[in-house]
Parts: sequence; structure tokens; C-alpha cells
Amino acid sequence: MSEIPNNHPRAESLRIRHRIIEGMDRNVVAKAGLIAHGRGEAFDYLLGEETTAPAKKAIKAAAAALLLSNYPVISVNGNSAALTPKEIVKLSEVSGAKLEVNIFYRSPGRLEAIKEVLEEAGAKEVLGVGETADGEIPEISSVRRVVDRRGILIADTVIVPIEDGDRTQALRKIGKTVIAVDLNPLSRTSQLANITIVDNHVRCMPLLVEEVKKLKNASKEELKKILDDYDNQKILGEVLELIRDRLTEISKKGV
Amino acid sequence: MSEIPNNHPRAESLRIRHRIIEGMDRNVVAKAGLIAHGRGEAFDYLLGEETTAPAKKAIKAAAAALLLSNYPVISVNGNSAALTPKEIVKLSEVSGAKLEVNIFYRSPGRLEAIKEVLEEAGAKEVLGVGETADGEIPEISSVRRVVDRRGILIADTVIVPIEDGDRTQALRKIGKTVIAVDLNPLSRTSQLANITIVDNHVRCMPLLVEEVKKLKNASKEELKKILDDYDNQKILGEVLELIRDRLTEISKKGV
Repeated sequence: MSEIPNNHPRAESLRIRHRIIEGMDRNVVAKAGLIAHGRGEAFDYLLGEETTAPAKKAIKAAAAALLLSNYPVISVNGNSAALTPKEIVKLSEVSGAKLEVNIFYRSPGRLEAIKEVLEEAGAKEVLGVGETADGEIPEISSVRRVVDRRGILIADTVIVPIEDGDRTQALRKIGKTVIAVDLNPLSRTSQLANITIVDNHVRCMPLLVEEVKKLKNASKEELKKILDDYDNQKILGEVLELIRDRLTEISKKGV
Repeated sequence: MSEIPNNHPRAESLRIRHRIIEGMDRNVVAKAGLIAHGRGEAFDYLLGEETTAPAKKAIKAAAAALLLSNYPVISVNGNSAALTPKEIVKLSEVSGAKLEVNIFYRSPGRLEAIKEVLEEAGAKEVLGVGETADGEIPEISSVRRVVDRRGILIADTVIVPIEDGDRTQALRKIGKTVIAVDLNPLSRTSQLANITIVDNHVRCMPLLVEEVKKLKNASKEELKKILDDYDNQKILGEVLELIRDRLTEISKKGV
């Protein structure tokens, strides 16, 4: 499975897929995470497998929101840890956001396996595992309500990877600013987040790191202006238009 | 994971998902099959999770093609065996098509596990496993080139589930009529097959069984007319239009 010829028409997509499968073999990715990855692949295909102009605007707004917030936290699940461990740690370093593992399928050792992946990638502190991980967000009905007292519980901004809609809704309800990374522009998470980056994790995380670095010395006013000018519903509409145009194009010229 | 409330907005999709995960626990579904299932979920969502009008036309054409062929074979992979074992066996019975297991990831015992699932569902003969499974289709570069001498090797029509494009192309090249069931209307398989049913296996297999029963007593001329009137590129175009319209609709009213 490791030999993917470079000239394969789907080489990059296959390489990413194998990272997810390896993640599962390490107990980092859940079975449902493999299926979620497939859904992402389909939407990415429709997006043309590139970071679109609206996604770039969302990345800029996300960077501004991270820099403006007092206590940002990056929520890490199995898929994001398997795909972009280094970039997640880097984002945490440049933005000052805490890292917290938060997952739905809590099989034995899985929280620890994800923590280990982040530590291997250079993380010095990983929340969500251990004794301070006994906070609760009652608005969330699943086990994901359990959060770290030093992390998501007291965060003002949470960046969530491939996410379930219920959790995004609950985080919004209790006043958190939610930045989502989700390839499906129609998902409840995408629709409910404050800022939705409709892009592949693998492509957008390095861009987000760069954007935070670039804006790091901007004034509060400049950052606020970026956020004020940002309209998430408009951005999602632009993404849907791109997908529609692409479908039209492909259906005309064939595959 | 087995408790899915009936009022969950995604209940049916979650139930199907769990069948695939159980299939993996039985060594029937490969890890890559879980990802493929996710891709299907995304496209099914875009289709509105219903059997569309163009899919119904393709089902009718597929039934006619099966009844007209001299030696039809149903190629069975892990996902299709996990999702619709009974319907596959039923289709084999009503159409006279042979059943043959053909998979990409040949982990130990997997061919046998799929055979067992089909036998539990009532299959009396399952090809692709055992001593006659030593035929070769040199046009296929992967291990899927190994086929049954009593099955795909001598078939005139092959019905393929969720499939890779290379194999579909090779089967066409050596003159087989290929009927594909694929939720992605843009996949190479969809584009290359003679008849593409863009639908969820779970929904389309019972419909295909019924259609074969209904057309069983039709004359050869009637069946030929159905096939002559069928235009796969036109049908795929109709599916793409439906997806575009649905994207427009959803983007207008929100999720």
C-alpha cells in the first residue's frame, strides 16, 4: 500500500489517505474517522483539491480571530492529529493557542495515542488528557462534553477540525468563537461556526500558520477590521458557487 | 455505537455506516473501503439520499442488459457484501448471474470472509475463491486481474459495485459490458461504464431485483429497445444537473 506511483492521477489524495490509515493502525484515528475522511475526499474533489479564494479569506479572518482572542484553544481530534501534527503544534506556537485533545470515540489509550503524536511533533503541553481533563460543558450531550479545565472550558476561541454539528452548536451557545476547518460547506458545523475554512487540513494548516505570522505585528484595529469585513455566510455561498461552476465545467468536458 | 435514535437527522445514514464498520470487524470490508464509503456518503448527501429519476432509468437499462446477456457475473467486493448481501444473492437468482468475489486488498481470509457472508445470505455458488480462481485479465495491472475461469474471465456482462476506474477501463477494453453502481457521477468508473447507476447500493439493489423480475418475460426486442434508447452520458449529465440544482436550493435556504 505504500507504493504510490508519482504519475498516478490521484497520487496526492492517496498519500493523504494512507496517513489516515496509518493513524488508525496507531489507534489515533477511529473507524468513523476513516469514513469522515472519505466524505472529505469527495468534497475536496468537488473543490478541485485546491485552496480556493474564499478559503483564503477565511484563513485570514481565522488568523485575526486567533490573534485577537485572549485564550484560544486548538481542539485536536484523531484525523487532524494523523494528518497535520507538526502544523498543529506550529500553529499553537505562533498563535499562543493551547492544544487540547477532544474526541468522540474514547477507546482505551486513544487520547494518549493522540497526545503522543502531538508530543512527537514537538508539543510541550497537551490538554484534554489526565487530571485537569474533568471539566464539563453540559450543553454538549456526547462524551465530548468532557473538556480540560485549563483549556476549552475557559477558552474564548476554539478552533475545531472535522467536527460534529452538535458540538459546534453547543460551543457557540455558550459564547465561544468557533473557527471550523471542514471540507463540507453544507455541514452543520460549517453553517454554525463563526469562521469556516472550507479546505483540506493538509493544505490549510500551513497557510494558517503563515497568516498568523504575517499578522502577528498588526494592530488590534487592523485585526478587528479584518474580522468586521468578514461575512461567513457570504464566504460559504462563494464556495458553493465554485462547486457548482466546477460541476458544470466537468460535466461539459467529461472526466 | 449501536444506539441510533430514530429521530436523529442522519439516522438511516448512520445505520448504513454501522453495517460497513461491522463488515470491517468481520474482515469483509477493508480500511480503504471505509474511506470509499465516506466518499459515497458525501455524494449521496448531494443527491438528496434518494433514488433519482436518472438512476431509475439506469436501473431499467441494467435489468435489460442483464437479461439480454449470455453470461452475466456480479462482481462482489467487501463493501457491497457488507451492505446488501441478501439483495446481491437475490439478483443472482432472478437474473441467472454468477456471483464472484473480486477485491483489491487481499488480506488473509478476506476472500473467504466475503464468500461466507454471501453464503449466509443464501448463495449456493460463490466464484473467485478457490481453485478455479486462477484466470487472468492481463489488461488489469492490480491483483484484481486474477479472476475466476468460470466467472468474470468468460462473462459478457459484469456488474461492478463501488469500483476503481482502472478495472472498469480494462473490462471495457476486453469487450465486457460493464454495469456500475457508483455514487460519484464524476468517477472514472461512472464515466467509463456502459450503464452507470448513480445510487446508494442499499437503495438500488432491491429496485434492480424488482426490475429484473418485471422484465423477465419481456421479449428480446423489447429489451433491446430499452438498451438502444439508453444514453449513459445523458443520464450522467442529468445526475450532475440534479446535484447542481440541489446545491443551489440548499445554499438558498441554508441547512
